[in-house]
Amino acid sequence: MSSRTVIRGGLVITASDEIHADVLIEDGRVAALAASGTPAAGALSAERVIDASGKYVIPGGVDGHTHMEMPFGGTYAADTFETGTRAAAWGGTTTVVDFAVQSVGHSLREGLDAWHAKAEGNCAVDYGFHMIVSDVNQDTLKEMDLLVEEGVTSFKQFMAYPGVFYSDDGQILRAMQRAAENGGLIMMHAENGIAIDVLVEQALARGETDPRYHGEVRKALLEAEATHRAIRLAQVAGAPLYVVHVSAQEAVAELTRARDEGLNVFGETCPQYLFLSTDNLAEPDFEGAKYVCSTPLRPREHQAALWRGLRTNDLQVVSTDHCPFCFSGQKELGRGDFSKIPNGMPGVEHRMDLLHQAVVDGHISRRRWIEIACATPARMFGLYPRKGTIAPGADADIVVYDPHAEQVVSAETHHMNVDYSAYEGKRITGRVETVLSRGEAVLTDREYTGRKGHGVYTPRSTCQYLS
Amino acid sequence: MSSRTVIRGGLVITASDEIHADVLIEDGRVAALAASGTPAAGALSAERVIDASGKYVIPGGVDGHTHMEMPFGGTYAADTFETGTRAAAWGGTTTVVDFAVQSVGHSLREGLDAWHAKAEGNCAVDYGFHMIVSDVNQDTLKEMDLLVEEGVTSFKQFMAYPGVFYSDDGQILRAMQRAAENGGLIMMHAENGIAIDVLVEQALARGETDPRYHGEVRKALLEAEATHRAIRLAQVAGAPLYVVHVSAQEAVAELTRARDEGLNVFGETCPQYLFLSTDNLAEPDFEGAKYVCSTPLRPREHQAALWRGLRTNDLQVVSTDHCPFCFSGQKELGRGDFSKIPNGMPGVEHRMDLLHQAVVDGHISRRRWIEIACATPARMFGLYPRKGTIAPGADADIVVYDPHAEQVVSAETHHMNVDYSAYEGKRITGRVETVLSRGEAVLTDREYTGRKGHGVYTPRSTCQYLS
Amino acid sequence: MSSRTVIRGGLVITASDEIHADVLIEDGRVAALAASGTPAAGALSAERVIDASGKYVIPGGVDGHTHMEMPFGGTYAADTFETGTRAAAWGGTTTVVDFAVQSVGHSLREGLDAWHAKAEGNCAVDYGFHMIVSDVNQDTLKEMDLLVEEGVTSFKQFMAYPGVFYSDDGQILRAMQRAAENGGLIMMHAENGIAIDVLVEQALARGETDPRYHGEVRKALLEAEATHRAIRLAQVAGAPLYVVHVSAQEAVAELTRARDEGLNVFGETCPQYLFLSTDNLAEPDFEGAKYVCSTPLRPREHQAALWRGLRTNDLQVVSTDHCPFCFSGQKELGRGDFSKIPNGMPGVEHRMDLLHQAVVDGHISRRRWIEIACATPARMFGLYPRKGTIAPGADADIVVYDPHAEQVVSAETHHMNVDYSAYEGKRITGRVETVLSRGEAVLTDREYTGRKGHGVYTPRSTCQYLS
Amino acid sequence: MSSRTVIRGGLVITASDEIHADVLIEDGRVAALAASGTPAAGALSAERVIDASGKYVIPGGVDGHTHMEMPFGGTYAADTFETGTRAAAWGGTTTVVDFAVQSVGHSLREGLDAWHAKAEGNCAVDYGFHMIVSDVNQDTLKEMDLLVEEGVTSFKQFMAYPGVFYSDDGQILRAMQRAAENGGLIMMHAENGIAIDVLVEQALARGETDPRYHGEVRKALLEAEATHRAIRLAQVAGAPLYVVHVSAQEAVAELTRARDEGLNVFGETCPQYLFLSTDNLAEPDFEGAKYVCSTPLRPREHQAALWRGLRTNDLQVVSTDHCPFCFSGQKELGRGDFSKIPNGMPGVEHRMDLLHQAVVDGHISRRRWIEIACATPARMFGLYPRKGTIAPGADADIVVYDPHAEQVVSAETHHMNVDYSAYEGKRITGRVETVLSRGEAVLTDREYTGRKGHGVYTPRSTCQYLS
Repeated sequence: MSSRTVIRGGLVITASDEIHADVLIEDGRVAALAASGTPAAGALSAERVIDASGKYVIPGGVDGHTHMEMPFGGTYAADTFETGTRAAAWGGTTTVVDFAVQSVGHSLREGLDAWHAKAEGNCAVDYGFHMIVSDVNQDTLKEMDLLVEEGVTSFKQFMAYPGVFYSDDGQILRAMQRAAENGGLIMMHAENGIAIDVLVEQALARGETDPRYHGEVRKALLEAEATHRAIRLAQVAGAPLYVVHVSAQEAVAELTRARDEGLNVFGETCPQYLFLSTDNLAEPDFEGAKYVCSTPLRPREHQAALWRGLRTNDLQVVSTDHCPFCFSGQKELGRGDFSKIPNGMPGVEHRMDLLHQAVVDGHISRRRWIEIACATPARMFGLYPRKGTIAPGADADIVVYDPHAEQVVSAETHHMNVDYSAYEGKRITGRVETVLSRGEAVLTDREYTGRKGHGVYTPRSTCQYLS
Repeated sequence: MSSRTVIRGGLVITASDEIHADVLIEDGRVAALAASGTPAAGALSAERVIDASGKYVIPGGVDGHTHMEMPFGGTYAADTFETGTRAAAWGGTTTVVDFAVQSVGHSLREGLDAWHAKAEGNCAVDYGFHMIVSDVNQDTLKEMDLLVEEGVTSFKQFMAYPGVFYSDDGQILRAMQRAAENGGLIMMHAENGIAIDVLVEQALARGETDPRYHGEVRKALLEAEATHRAIRLAQVAGAPLYVVHVSAQEAVAELTRARDEGLNVFGETCPQYLFLSTDNLAEPDFEGAKYVCSTPLRPREHQAALWRGLRTNDLQVVSTDHCPFCFSGQKELGRGDFSKIPNGMPGVEHRMDLLHQAVVDGHISRRRWIEIACATPARMFGLYPRKGTIAPGADADIVVYDPHAEQVVSAETHHMNVDYSAYEGKRITGRVETVLSRGEAVLTDREYTGRKGHGVYTPRSTCQYLS
Repeated sequence: MSSRTVIRGGLVITASDEIHADVLIEDGRVAALAASGTPAAGALSAERVIDASGKYVIPGGVDGHTHMEMPFGGTYAADTFETGTRAAAWGGTTTVVDFAVQSVGHSLREGLDAWHAKAEGNCAVDYGFHMIVSDVNQDTLKEMDLLVEEGVTSFKQFMAYPGVFYSDDGQILRAMQRAAENGGLIMMHAENGIAIDVLVEQALARGETDPRYHGEVRKALLEAEATHRAIRLAQVAGAPLYVVHVSAQEAVAELTRARDEGLNVFGETCPQYLFLSTDNLAEPDFEGAKYVCSTPLRPREHQAALWRGLRTNDLQVVSTDHCPFCFSGQKELGRGDFSKIPNGMPGVEHRMDLLHQAVVDGHISRRRWIEIACATPARMFGLYPRKGTIAPGADADIVVYDPHAEQVVSAETHHMNVDYSAYEGKRITGRVETVLSRGEAVLTDREYTGRKGHGVYTPRSTCQYLS
Repeated sequence: MSSRTVIRGGLVITASDEIHADVLIEDGRVAALAASGTPAAGALSAERVIDASGKYVIPGGVDGHTHMEMPFGGTYAADTFETGTRAAAWGGTTTVVDFAVQSVGHSLREGLDAWHAKAEGNCAVDYGFHMIVSDVNQDTLKEMDLLVEEGVTSFKQFMAYPGVFYSDDGQILRAMQRAAENGGLIMMHAENGIAIDVLVEQALARGETDPRYHGEVRKALLEAEATHRAIRLAQVAGAPLYVVHVSAQEAVAELTRARDEGLNVFGETCPQYLFLSTDNLAEPDFEGAKYVCSTPLRPREHQAALWRGLRTNDLQVVSTDHCPFCFSGQKELGRGDFSKIPNGMPGVEHRMDLLHQAVVDGHISRRRWIEIACATPARMFGLYPRKGTIAPGADADIVVYDPHAEQVVSAETHHMNVDYSAYEGKRITGRVETVLSRGEAVLTDREYTGRKGHGVYTPRSTCQYLS
């Protein structure tokens, strides 16, 4: 028996189109779109009808950068796959790509298996994995090929965090060379961690222990430097490059330069860099710790460069880098030493809304909203056309979005498993109403109708965004 | 009674998607897309079925730059609206935007009326008009507002051709200011014609009369200069800018710089700049005259910058600047004086094919092919979503394209009313098979089934491509 | 009989050296330098000894941009050659290069003769002439060759002031081509005057008549545009280019780009752009008129780019563009219409001091002070090594400068024939004590000992600054 | 008794002047310059007169980059301080700044003492030392302060050669911070050695053992990357930076960008990069090994960027990086494995001549020749005004240069202790005739009249070239 749903009367918005169309779902996939009000639309019949009049019908969000249950700094990110993906669903995100972690001295396989174990059977929406490669050697290089074959097609390296995740330039070059061969995409945390750690040590020695010094020592120039270095190493290797969580205008400039040269170099930013700043890091009473993440928040004037980069497509993706730590008990580990504050912020629930606010504010167009939040991450990470669009054949991951509703963000009402919100009190125009994941209603008129285990592992093809 | 057609089994390619879908057409519009092979697709019924198995199903091309029956240099472009739009249809182009001409001392209205008279009842496919503004004054500035209201939403000015089409920087600034208010888009022929005319005079005085000197005097630096100047004037006016027929790498560099600054500046190039070069202008026996157009063909090494610009979206559109003059009797007017050769080349028939060849050659992707040839020109000139895509509600301007067929371009077989081909003998992979215009078959399995007068004037909204 | 002077014990500063040396002058020229305190220095004997202990001994300033008795806007610049060159001497400037003016319809010769007549017998210090070319035609192009031969080796053109000094791009190109052949240097007033005049008309129509609107309509982007255009035209002509009175950071950026490309492109700025800003133009009660000049003063934040340009040698020269008009009776012509305010400011007396203040403030080094104010203008305009340095064989144009003296600038005490000072009340560290012109004391311990007619016309060789 | 020499009738060329002057030397210093033929010149009397009619009188060259007796790759550079400085004198170079080497685990002091021991009493001309810092730690940072005080004011670090000279980015940052405080100048070998070593290993594994692979694995992009990284680290530290042996056009571009930003960033290139190329590295029969140095020779097309950089002052200095290894027995260590070829080339003898040839060829002017070879290195390394110019008070390090003589370079006739010449057979116009070092004749009409031990250690002040 075929289960059929039709969503009628909404404005279907994809990265490329805004059309008044009814959407027919069969067996969890988009079966047809028909121009609303035409005989063809009238002929669509279904067991279930969702009325989307006056609403947007958009693809479910694809968040390409989350860290559920991530071990960091002696503690764990506070969201499990269960709580984190449920919060994602509440926020209109129907796919997350999380980072499995290789520990130094262990194989990629071990790390990946561990992450599969954490996620399997627990997720509200679909998920995939990137692989953090902490230890490049002949064995791990071979494992990269195998992972690409089984749908883990992107590998993150760190130019920061020596002794933990850090890869030196030789390891980076080797991994990039391998990726150039097997189609993998290298994702880079681009900060010169070797130099930063000198500045951290010096700051602490001067007694500069407050969270705001986190923003001062992790200098914009050292993000830009590492970004440039990663670009040139990728160029030598003949590999594409995806730079995660770009926050500094100087780093955007390096990406712009690389793209002007025609290189397959891509950049992601995150809502926290677009809406928050070092002003938050400087909040008194250690409250700044809530905003400690790396790359760090930047002075407010960097935001214009990020918005411009999103408009000019020098930045292609907005992800969350969701990695929540509770203020109480977790962030507090760094009282008296900012370098001990777990790096990371909650965000998976609010990305779609914050970017809609950016539409309302005039920073980006509606279609660009869907492009940077749904379509491009899906293409970038090999999930297209199943994810990221509403088109015949695609997974029916669909959000009915009310563009006129008003909401106020608060830890009181959010669904992430963390005791504070980085956007506490922020008013946003727009709200997710109903969310389908492969045709099943996870959220129905703002009532949670999903279930743990509905979300399944989604193997990915290689990057579909190369030019 | 509703006329319905369904195109089954093809790969539907738009600027954003490649999907296996059946396309239902009702009353000249796309009514529905359904995933091929699904029950939903099976439920689509129609009087007429087109089998597109193994073929591409693509939007009809939008050629944003043609000059039918254009008076120039004492003669007329050889294609009428009848012959030119028929050739367009043969080549898979279903919309042309032609240039109505204001003569100095006359109103915009007179010029527009004259062009309406030429086109009406004669076209095989739909058409719109840009307006060439040769004489900016208080009256014409007011007329611009009226034209925008009636769907002529773009205005071309010339920084070349003093005494004919030339506007000085004050006239340009005034027109741009007006466009900033009324939503019009200024299209610019960006060459420093004042300086070029000095070089022309000097070359002729030295006895350099061969067509190849046309390429030498119209220097790349003078195209780049004018491009930069137009950009800054637009910036002062707060207006967007569309630069036509970009050919020099130095001009691309100026556009790249402007776009990095986040300006709404756009660039068009043409197949002749992508596939031909000054080598052609230097062909002996006055054959070079066939390739005389302005901006001129450039040395071969400029092509890489154009392709890169198309990939990086520093160039957004490929149009033809179709303006054919017969070698015999027309181009020959310039024997002994290259400056008397009518400027222009035929091309409306081969744009879609040449760009498909670029896909085959690896310069661009399939989706980018459709984007630069169909979707973006439609958005740029306010024809979206009626034209440029295949989506519910869009006009059923659709081409069934055989990507495997082979053809050889020749004046023997082409359908343009001109006695030579600029691509004589060139082998191309890919061929238009069937062309629908608003659901009616203009070309059916490479048999012309269209008719003069089917094509209608299409008023345009203002630019839909601004960021 | 030989007249000999020795200047003992000072710090001799040139563009390249700072040495403790005694300077021997014979017959108006520097005959020898000897290390102070050595036997060789002891052996220098002279009728006259100037004690420069604790002082700087520097080359007399070379001001490459003055307009004495210049007709403009229906009036004349208030300084005659007599008053203006005397004021120059007071300020440590021993050579001025003034602009002879060709009127449209007249020959260069006529203009030059007129300026010779004004200057001859009246000057306190030496002078040369640039030629303003207002009317490029075959005759004037030929005259350019003759003028180069007789020592007028630089030609100024205007991209502004249509109907008065304006040259179109064809005229500019022709003049540049001629200069490329005869060694002349084209000096450019780089503002898009055609566009600016549109903005002027519109501002006045809106009732914006105050002097501050002068700064608003003459937009930085239109200076940058014209600068870029002049650079590209010079590149086409194969000629060097000298851009006068650069004030906008965007224009500096164009010069920087050209110099990075290795072009012989040079830029001059003036003290008013380094020390004043649009804040002055906005002074109430029409006081802003005192600061009306073109290019206009810019917002304060442009100053940093100018200083940086002076340090990086993207700007090479600081001249004054001295062109004084009294507030009373002259500047007042523009009450109620800023476009009628005579363009120009007094400054010839204070350039050396203001730039010494820049040394004190840390903007530039002592040697760079001499380079931009003496040595480079001398080389740029073919006066080297007679002017601009202290070296054996050079003209003994020498200033004894007290780096510790304090002064306050005021119209009460200045020597220019104008009723206000643009720097009224400004405190400056450093003061000219004694000035020699070809060995004769023009100023002696701040007593004027010069005379009208001492200064002579100085023919110039072609530019000595090309790389 | 005072020893006095006068050099009569030559054209004295310095970085800033070209004057016909007689030069009086007293007690090893320049005592006076007098305009030739004047009474003042006639009054100069001396025991010894050198006739320089028709010749150039130039400052002795300052070679800021030599490696005498340098241990490298299991062998030693073949020139001792005795043979090397004698060869320098033959080539008109009167000061060398050599590199003392700290070995890992040892103090700076130990290294410096060892180099003093090698040099003392052995040199034909004056010398100073830079210090290679191989091991940055708290002790060596303190030692840097001491060395600056005793005249070793520049410190070289390597981004290449891991395990030997290599410093990581943290060590570089710390050293730069220290230099920012104590006035030291960091000199950088800018190649990403970590990445290069991966490419070396891979090339050898592919059997690519010929010298030409040395040029292929040490990629231009990896020089540019390291150059950019060093610039940003210096910017973070607030320190100036001097990049040694720049060879790649991409690296020049990074320097240009930094200088456009106003940073105190400097670049040195060497004659081998200006006159030789990868064509030499590809010479058959292992002859390419003669040209193995790092950074490597680049394809010929890079030369234009280097010449342009020298003209635009984006490169400021030409040194030799003199580090000779005999072909026989030394270079041959790398047969079958290019990575075992000692890196380095002879050159100290030919720098002045090769750069004069560049004057003859039109690449640079005469004054720029002296600037990049004498004056700027003297300023850069704190030797001004004792070295690098001819001015009262300066050391009488003077070369009488015949600009018309012809010579052919050959190992048969050169004076360096190495069995080949990198310029074998090259014809050069211009030749050193006579060389004075502090007034003493080291070379007299091309007869060696110097002696071992004449040259003395010359402590240096801090960098005098900052803007």
